[in-house]
Amino acid sequence: MLQMKSCAFALLAFPLAAQTLAPRSVPARQIPVPTDVSPALQKVIARPAEPGSAPTPKTTEEWKKSLAGPNAEEAKNAERLARELHVAVKPGTIGGVAVFYVTPEVVPPQNKGRLLMHVHGGGYVAFAGMAATSEAILLASHTGIAVVSVDYRMPPDAPFPAAVDDAAAVWKSLIQTHNPRGMALFGTSAGGGLTLATTLKLKELKLPLPGALMAGTPWADLTQTGDTEFTNQYLDNTLVQYQGGLAADARLYAGSHNLKEPLLSPVYGDLSGFPPTILVTGTRDLFLSDTVRVHQKLLQAGVDAQLIVLEGQSHAQYLDNSIPESRAALDEVAQFLDRHLDR
Amino acid sequence: MLQMKSCAFALLAFPLAAQTLAPRSVPARQIPVPTDVSPALQKVIARPAEPGSAPTPKTTEEWKKSLAGPNAEEAKNAERLARELHVAVKPGTIGGVAVFYVTPEVVPPQNKGRLLMHVHGGGYVAFAGMAATSEAILLASHTGIAVVSVDYRMPPDAPFPAAVDDAAAVWKSLIQTHNPRGMALFGTSAGGGLTLATTLKLKELKLPLPGALMAGTPWADLTQTGDTEFTNQYLDNTLVQYQGGLAADARLYAGSHNLKEPLLSPVYGDLSGFPPTILVTGTRDLFLSDTVRVHQKLLQAGVDAQLIVLEGQSHAQYLDNSIPESRAALDEVAQFLDRHLDR
Repeated sequence: MLQMKSCAFALLAFPLAAQTLAPRSVPARQIPVPTDVSPALQKVIARPAEPGSAPTPKTTEEWKKSLAGPNAEEAKNAERLARELHVAVKPGTIGGVAVFYVTPEVVPPQNKGRLLMHVHGGGYVAFAGMAATSEAILLASHTGIAVVSVDYRMPPDAPFPAAVDDAAAVWKSLIQTHNPRGMALFGTSAGGGLTLATTLKLKELKLPLPGALMAGTPWADLTQTGDTEFTNQYLDNTLVQYQGGLAADARLYAGSHNLKEPLLSPVYGDLSGFPPTILVTGTRDLFLSDTVRVHQKLLQAGVDAQLIVLEGQSHAQYLDNSIPESRAALDEVAQFLDRHLDR
Repeated sequence: MLQMKSCAFALLAFPLAAQTLAPRSVPARQIPVPTDVSPALQKVIARPAEPGSAPTPKTTEEWKKSLAGPNAEEAKNAERLARELHVAVKPGTIGGVAVFYVTPEVVPPQNKGRLLMHVHGGGYVAFAGMAATSEAILLASHTGIAVVSVDYRMPPDAPFPAAVDDAAAVWKSLIQTHNPRGMALFGTSAGGGLTLATTLKLKELKLPLPGALMAGTPWADLTQTGDTEFTNQYLDNTLVQYQGGLAADARLYAGSHNLKEPLLSPVYGDLSGFPPTILVTGTRDLFLSDTVRVHQKLLQAGVDAQLIVLEGQSHAQYLDNSIPESRAALDEVAQFLDRHLDR
């Protein structure tokens, strides 16, 4: 039975039988802050989960206005991180696309020929410009590898497939001068989804694939389908819930496209042939289900895939470098990339 | 920074600062059955989660009476599985301990020198005798490797450390005639915890360790500490909650010992030097946190550890072979063992 393949079920579209099955009734509860995590993480977990009350923007101008505040705040965070972690950040252009060169002060000899390509998160709508770079700075620091962070075009001006096209264009240009097996592609949240979608696109274009991927808590399904989008609602104090912000972001990004197209929701794509992939999420993450669904699909496609789930963490809190568990997780990502990238 | 070790925090006992931090208020909710899993799994997820209402047994006789029903039912399940999957089950004795020889009808040539040692679940109190063997039968079938299932002594007659001592005694006897690197130790729930505790004990005894472990949703912490023991309360329709059954089982098993002793709660043990380990859990599992805590401790101890989290599944539902996702997960376990065991 060892050779038996049990993949057939994964290819079916399941009938919506569940709609006729009774939901689970869960009473109102007070969930304590866990005591088995560091004091720094306890403080992050204790932050209130406040569903965003701002109305969804209706016009291009309203969207731009609503994004300006978070963008400016995240840009400041990135500048602080760059100073703290001794990482240089310089704007540039690759393949006609805006990028940032994010370079650690010290690059050890074994990493000279390596390069990481980063696609930022922010629901496909937020974190343009310098705000795109904070995760790139963290990974540059933890890996000791230079990063190119793609400042891809976004809605409302440039909806799907602009982001995927921009990421693919940068990759196509980078492989002219770099060994693709010495490069990894990575990102978190929308950036995790875009990491997977871009890899699907590179397969479609028959381009060489990266040597490894990190898909951090990937927004791999733009619809509200994964079980933890329900079970972790109100528990996740980063995303809080799908309705509202995420639903509006998905709609704005996808335009007239079906949200389940694989380049929008890569959990529905064919992940065979993907490079070794590490996935990171947390037990309270709204996207825990999306992450484990992708992990199972990768394993069943024969891909070397490693899953990390962090105790008590909500969405993407491993990018908070005040949390020791988060720094440890990024070191695990760095070790995974070090194992899989050509020198 | 690549070589930076961030393990220090994992060795600290965290102050209980969380007790002064505000808990999260979560309103009453109706959680739908997910539509991204097979119809067979949807049916399992839709089963009501009914907190056990039976009072905790007070005397040895009451305990034995309360266990008789579940034991008989699980023994029948094991007999059905053995017939269905063409696996022979025969009682025996190894190192003075009762065991079952659980042998697949067909053992491929590469598995002739391999052996799996199984320690069953059941909260350290349930599933004695034939009831111990259903997981062993499943793994024998999925791996094509012969299994020895340890029918270890249990409370109320034989509390801790009888179970650990019995498992260690069987191991000590098996390694007289088998290559330890060709053997894996495995179990689920209490059996997952006992897999880890037995490995700690083997380290203590300076005996050679197995070539691999499978710790399925390990009860790695007998106290109610892991975050999902709170967040997944009422969502997990196998265990439902810690208070009641689990708390009573822990107390009966531990006797006068502190529940956080590493041989009782191996998440508090030193996991360095452990063999490659695969862990399996589900997004609704009450022990999701215990599983991911062990996974992180293993990775930080430099152990090759693989985590599998199954969409929508409650505790140990991967042992239900009517669910295609569960059969696929056991195939992933089989592949992991095949990669790591000597031939």
